[in-house]
Amino acid sequence: MFFHRKELQYHASPQSPDPVYAKKLQEILGGQFGEISVAMQYLFQGWNTRGNEKYKDMLMDIGTEELAHIEMITTMIARLLDKAPVKDQEEAAQNPIIAAALGGMNPQHAIVSGLGAMPVNSTGVPWNAGYIVASGNLIADFRANLNAESQGRLQVARLYEMTDDPGVREMLSFLAARDTMHQNQWIAALKELEEKEGIVVPGTFGSDREAKEFSYSFMNCSQGTESKAGSWASGPSIDGKGTFEYVENPEPHAEAPILEPAPLYMHSTLPDDMKKMPFNE
Amino acid sequence: MFFHRKELQYHASPQSPDPVYAKKLQEILGGQFGEISVAMQYLFQGWNTRGNEKYKDMLMDIGTEELAHIEMITTMIARLLDKAPVKDQEEAAQNPIIAAALGGMNPQHAIVSGLGAMPVNSTGVPWNAGYIVASGNLIADFRANLNAESQGRLQVARLYEMTDDPGVREMLSFLAARDTMHQNQWIAALKELEEKEGIVVPGTFGSDREAKEFSYSFMNCSQGTESKAGSWASGPSIDGKGTFEYVENPEPHAEAPILEPAPLYMHSTLPDDMKKMPFNE
Amino acid sequence: MFFHRKELQYHASPQSPDPVYAKKLQEILGGQFGEISVAMQYLFQGWNTRGNEKYKDMLMDIGTEELAHIEMITTMIARLLDKAPVKDQEEAAQNPIIAAALGGMNPQHAIVSGLGAMPVNSTGVPWNAGYIVASGNLIADFRANLNAESQGRLQVARLYEMTDDPGVREMLSFLAARDTMHQNQWIAALKELEEKEGIVVPGTFGSDREAKEFSYSFMNCSQGTESKAGSWASGPSIDGKGTFEYVENPEPHAEAPILEPAPLYMHSTLPDDMKKMPFNE
Amino acid sequence: MFFHRKELQYHASPQSPDPVYAKKLQEILGGQFGEISVAMQYLFQGWNTRGNEKYKDMLMDIGTEELAHIEMITTMIARLLDKAPVKDQEEAAQNPIIAAALGGMNPQHAIVSGLGAMPVNSTGVPWNAGYIVASGNLIADFRANLNAESQGRLQVARLYEMTDDPGVREMLSFLAARDTMHQNQWIAALKELEEKEGIVVPGTFGSDREAKEFSYSFMNCSQGTESKAGSWASGPSIDGKGTFEYVENPEPHAEAPILEPAPLYMHSTLPDDMKKMPFNE
Amino acid sequence: MFFHRKELQYHASPQSPDPVYAKKLQEILGGQFGEISVAMQYLFQGWNTRGNEKYKDMLMDIGTEELAHIEMITTMIARLLDKAPVKDQEEAAQNPIIAAALGGMNPQHAIVSGLGAMPVNSTGVPWNAGYIVASGNLIADFRANLNAESQGRLQVARLYEMTDDPGVREMLSFLAARDTMHQNQWIAALKELEEKEGIVVPGTFGSDREAKEFSYSFMNCSQGTESKAGSWASGPSIDGKGTFEYVENPEPHAEAPILEPAPLYMHSTLPDDMKKMPFNE
Amino acid sequence: MFFHRKELQYHASPQSPDPVYAKKLQEILGGQFGEISVAMQYLFQGWNTRGNEKYKDMLMDIGTEELAHIEMITTMIARLLDKAPVKDQEEAAQNPIIAAALGGMNPQHAIVSGLGAMPVNSTGVPWNAGYIVASGNLIADFRANLNAESQGRLQVARLYEMTDDPGVREMLSFLAARDTMHQNQWIAALKELEEKEGIVVPGTFGSDREAKEFSYSFMNCSQGTESKAGSWASGPSIDGKGTFEYVENPEPHAEAPILEPAPLYMHSTLPDDMKKMPFNE
Repeated sequence: MFFHRKELQYHASPQSPDPVYAKKLQEILGGQFGEISVAMQYLFQGWNTRGNEKYKDMLMDIGTEELAHIEMITTMIARLLDKAPVKDQEEAAQNPIIAAALGGMNPQHAIVSGLGAMPVNSTGVPWNAGYIVASGNLIADFRANLNAESQGRLQVARLYEMTDDPGVREMLSFLAARDTMHQNQWIAALKELEEKEGIVVPGTFGSDREAKEFSYSFMNCSQGTESKAGSWASGPSIDGKGTFEYVENPEPHAEAPILEPAPLYMHSTLPDDMKKMPFNE
Repeated sequence: MFFHRKELQYHASPQSPDPVYAKKLQEILGGQFGEISVAMQYLFQGWNTRGNEKYKDMLMDIGTEELAHIEMITTMIARLLDKAPVKDQEEAAQNPIIAAALGGMNPQHAIVSGLGAMPVNSTGVPWNAGYIVASGNLIADFRANLNAESQGRLQVARLYEMTDDPGVREMLSFLAARDTMHQNQWIAALKELEEKEGIVVPGTFGSDREAKEFSYSFMNCSQGTESKAGSWASGPSIDGKGTFEYVENPEPHAEAPILEPAPLYMHSTLPDDMKKMPFNE
Repeated sequence: MFFHRKELQYHASPQSPDPVYAKKLQEILGGQFGEISVAMQYLFQGWNTRGNEKYKDMLMDIGTEELAHIEMITTMIARLLDKAPVKDQEEAAQNPIIAAALGGMNPQHAIVSGLGAMPVNSTGVPWNAGYIVASGNLIADFRANLNAESQGRLQVARLYEMTDDPGVREMLSFLAARDTMHQNQWIAALKELEEKEGIVVPGTFGSDREAKEFSYSFMNCSQGTESKAGSWASGPSIDGKGTFEYVENPEPHAEAPILEPAPLYMHSTLPDDMKKMPFNE
Repeated sequence: MFFHRKELQYHASPQSPDPVYAKKLQEILGGQFGEISVAMQYLFQGWNTRGNEKYKDMLMDIGTEELAHIEMITTMIARLLDKAPVKDQEEAAQNPIIAAALGGMNPQHAIVSGLGAMPVNSTGVPWNAGYIVASGNLIADFRANLNAESQGRLQVARLYEMTDDPGVREMLSFLAARDTMHQNQWIAALKELEEKEGIVVPGTFGSDREAKEFSYSFMNCSQGTESKAGSWASGPSIDGKGTFEYVENPEPHAEAPILEPAPLYMHSTLPDDMKKMPFNE
Repeated sequence: MFFHRKELQYHASPQSPDPVYAKKLQEILGGQFGEISVAMQYLFQGWNTRGNEKYKDMLMDIGTEELAHIEMITTMIARLLDKAPVKDQEEAAQNPIIAAALGGMNPQHAIVSGLGAMPVNSTGVPWNAGYIVASGNLIADFRANLNAESQGRLQVARLYEMTDDPGVREMLSFLAARDTMHQNQWIAALKELEEKEGIVVPGTFGSDREAKEFSYSFMNCSQGTESKAGSWASGPSIDGKGTFEYVENPEPHAEAPILEPAPLYMHSTLPDDMKKMPFNE
Repeated sequence: MFFHRKELQYHASPQSPDPVYAKKLQEILGGQFGEISVAMQYLFQGWNTRGNEKYKDMLMDIGTEELAHIEMITTMIARLLDKAPVKDQEEAAQNPIIAAALGGMNPQHAIVSGLGAMPVNSTGVPWNAGYIVASGNLIADFRANLNAESQGRLQVARLYEMTDDPGVREMLSFLAARDTMHQNQWIAALKELEEKEGIVVPGTFGSDREAKEFSYSFMNCSQGTESKAGSWASGPSIDGKGTFEYVENPEPHAEAPILEPAPLYMHSTLPDDMKKMPFNE
């Protein structure tokens, strides 16, 4: 069960409105790696965790915190949209800076949400749950989480460069700090789990079920061997169970497939020599 | 530029058709972490890599290999659908095993693709590019890749359990082996890059731009302190730059937000004391 | 800012697992009118409310409660999936009830989420933010909310009929009760606002800006006049400003449109007599 | 069966082309509450109505009229795009007003549709059927319809403010008038039905199936009691069957959930004490 | 403007309900090539046609007819769902045929639409406007239309095979006949236009703007030369302006691309030798 | 199995960066008819082809070539984005041309991809597999392919008009040439197949299964008879099996549908005279 306090976790007041920047900031609200994504991802992982109460509690902690980040960014966007000049057509027709501002806004901020934040990304595409990950395997999922916090902090850094507004930068500096913590946190949690389960996910699917001769080979499918210089191309494998091998000229291991004709009731194109058969049987 | 050889990279022949399993196998073809996702993800990362030819080449190698995996799974699905009994309504009305098979199939395999594979997941949702990641920051992206290979091998393992067909299992054993290699590979590549850039992404966004007092604090937003037992809650942080702190009762750091009224031309609901103002100015 | 308590708002324990029903229950979790929709809808409305603290607080109250409903349903779905027999291929091949159960499950519950709830509807389509409404006009939005609670309780009622499990029915009886409250609540709130602003949204867009001769006419565009018997076809209009009129044979009020040809640089099909003009200018 | 007359229902001629405004106007054509949505919503409700010929006829009347509104707006958009200066790169490089216009257009209007209207919203997102509602319960659906007409008229009002073109405003004044009628109409129809069925949908799902002690309680899940001032917090409930109660400190009514471990064949993370069990059984 | 008559264009009465088949039939209602697609495609093409009244009228004729087909299929689906046994859990637990039927239904037919048709395809994915085509170039669009009627009749044929119900087959026999007409019609219209504009679309983009040396070459990018036997590999080209050539070993015509590093403010991974440059400038 | 060579198939170097044009060029990369669509469409058709090795090989040839086109366009977009001035807020505030450029960019090119190409269209909507076609019937599919190459070349022509950059035009001139070849190719392949199977798809679904009296009638559902002048309205039909007929006043052939009431457990609105029946049975 959840409870809400009205104070914001951190400041979310721009020095000045900027409707074009409001559009851009939507990316870290409703984009692939926005705050809606991480909140939902951590909460679903938490709700689905079976046993492992330490991790379940941790997931509920961070998922709940991310709800506060959604709240900060929606507030910031609403303030960036304050008094957006969407009515000033005449002035826009003569002042190109205003014309550019109106052209650079997300028009839905005026038409649909009435100068409010929306659950969409910076191009206006609605958030969808195909972005999130919750598999029941915690190593797999914490890797997804580490990725999400890395992409998230990268986007915060880029957005920081794209504004001079000290109020916006203040909020972004907080989000960057939390992303620093969360990258550290997922790496720490992964270390715990990898020590117990090994680094190859899922650890319970043994190598005896694999086609082992392919488990440590790098296949050079793109002409040029620059990739041979990588640490993945020779030496002991990271999981300690094999040796990396560089396959310079990878070959197929199976024949070219030939598929059987479709049954007549599929009305697909038949091979020529089957055409004598009665149709519509 | 790409070239194709007709032989398959590995075997893709089931012992027997099984249209219900064909539906399930779609997950690792056209699902969030299916082969279309990894092929597109690696290729876009490769095409967008600026300099760093070693990594660019490696991405093109693996992206190109994944195209071969798409090919193997499409072939397997087509064969699992061979002669699917979609026409046998009368028999189905009396034979509940056939009725269940017809009910458990993806109907589009019969109606739309003519017993062929489709670029959709196991519930029939079309693949979309919102699944993939290519940011220009290689540490961030290789973390996405490590996640993708982890989720991918997990799904292969689950699908392996869900069939007894030796031909299907043979193909899955190959895919599991490649996922083992690729998990090893991304971890190896991450080690190289993290040594140079640090573990917090992006390394170029310095901690002087962060609200540093929040960079190493775990916030206990969910009642109960099981999460305090984790390695993320105390001791030196993973990046070596701070000390993890457990904030048992996290507090807001900013006031409750009060938003200004919308301009009248937005036709939103106005606060009561503004109602005296002239409308439709 | 949000805080979480681990106890559930209400019971969410089925008497027995039922993976087919788990798939159906996804509708009120991740469907168009599922709990994710109402939680996000109320929270976004709350965050975007400008002034009107009574309504803003109320929206945050109910949005926060809906998060607890998401939590109850995810928990119920995980338990309905307990020990789902996804591995029992051999038995399924002979036991048609098991075969039907496996065919009727959402395969992603086994392959993707590891027997956990997912943010998708009952056919597996991911939740997306195109479902929700937050316009800044409270009468408009509370009508959206009344609709959401009506559709939601209707779906709860139908799902109640589709199971005999007393544990599932217990949870549904709670959700139905809350939907009763929430339907009452939105009607109460609407009455308050409509008294001040009138029933036609937005009240600030005056009828002097309308083509008033069309503001109270019912147009009989479908042959047959059964619709004439409705209370919308005659008598005083609900807003008290006009009289309903039944237009039995509605007519066009403007000419058939003729569009100008596209410029040549559009490479569209040109009308015949323009074909003499020079191309590729 | 449908028949078409070429004349438009009302005027749809702008005084001047304006490709940036054409992009914005797409919202009420292909957006969540655009004319495609209401046409499809009313027609599907009509086609699915079982008995109740008065309502079925009325739904077909209004659904058919909305097709004429789609037609008006597509015509208007095509005319707003007349001779859009998409070829004038050189001029744009020097004239910032033209540059802003080109930047503010929907590029698909030039590249994809050849200066024609598209079934997308104002940010270019394609219309999808997840927007519409047709449940078989007419009270529920008429509430959806009232919402759609309210959001629709609100968006018309906002778009009216965003242009000075008298031709565009003429069309919008007609659409606003029809939305006035349709809001009146749905309220009238709701009154008829609520008198018979009660205000809580569905009326056929009796309160004996509800957890009645929660049917009239407002739960204050967000700190602060501003919401206590609402008409939903005390006094008789709107449905006349209970009394509103304000629960200032809502409490959980069930225990914290503990989920059973997943079966081993799921390859999920297991609780520590289960790790001794044999894998891959 | 549109008008509706209540009679159906053709019969739409199944002999018996069949909720599993209702799910399948959704494909030709709300699938990629269902009736919603063709109705919307033809109407948008008609509305956007500039001049060319003969074609515009024809498009409005056929688009309007397709609305009647939507109506027939929605009616058929509603009747196939009559009295679907969604409540019979107990019986289903013992009768595997009923269990299979319930598992094979689209659960939304019971939960969401109340046994009505929905604007979704046979797997439950909502219709979206990304399916349709309206470019302003009539040859291009009529080719899209010919494809749509071909895919449509193919799906009708497959669905015909999947049922024995004479009422369903009667309706499908009508739809197949109309698809025969419409395939004939689009080919006839294409002949008219291709005679005037040539077969290569757009005819107004002259070959002097092409890299002509590549305009008639078939490139053998997949090992094996079976494709050499085709009529596209030698002889005069269809447009009469060139000669088909078979390029057995296609070669690249440009160098391997090397991209410049990203600016520092992008926080992307930089090439090694740039690492000495000052960050965060 | 696939192999990659690093050289590009053709040149992809703009003379100058142009981030606004980069956004537009996304249409032919990740739009409905962009290179991702044709690559995936041809490859899936090839993989699903059963027998017919000549066509299968040809599909693999062209599908593989299209991968090279994706590569060229991603490279071009990355170069058009070189050093995009996303950091120059101050200058933008004063220089309206820069302001317009920033407003006209796809913000994700800076925030998400780090100045790289993305798998999205020109408005930022992600590519999805609902765009592609692979039915197993080659005539149907080759018609889809002819359409795709026609829409594709049309979009190339329009984009050519929208830039003066000689490097961009050079790449487009190559793509236009390949589209010329591919339109020729599909027409050639269609002629081969239509000679064997007839022009009506599928040829195996005989006219004895059609309601033949409707197979050659044009129905004038839109007032006005301009469409009567078309070659589809009279004379022998294209398939040589009938005579086109113009039905000036098309009539319904079936009664108005009356649907049975829903069962009580659906909680839908019941007709009045059923209201006496016991609820909640």
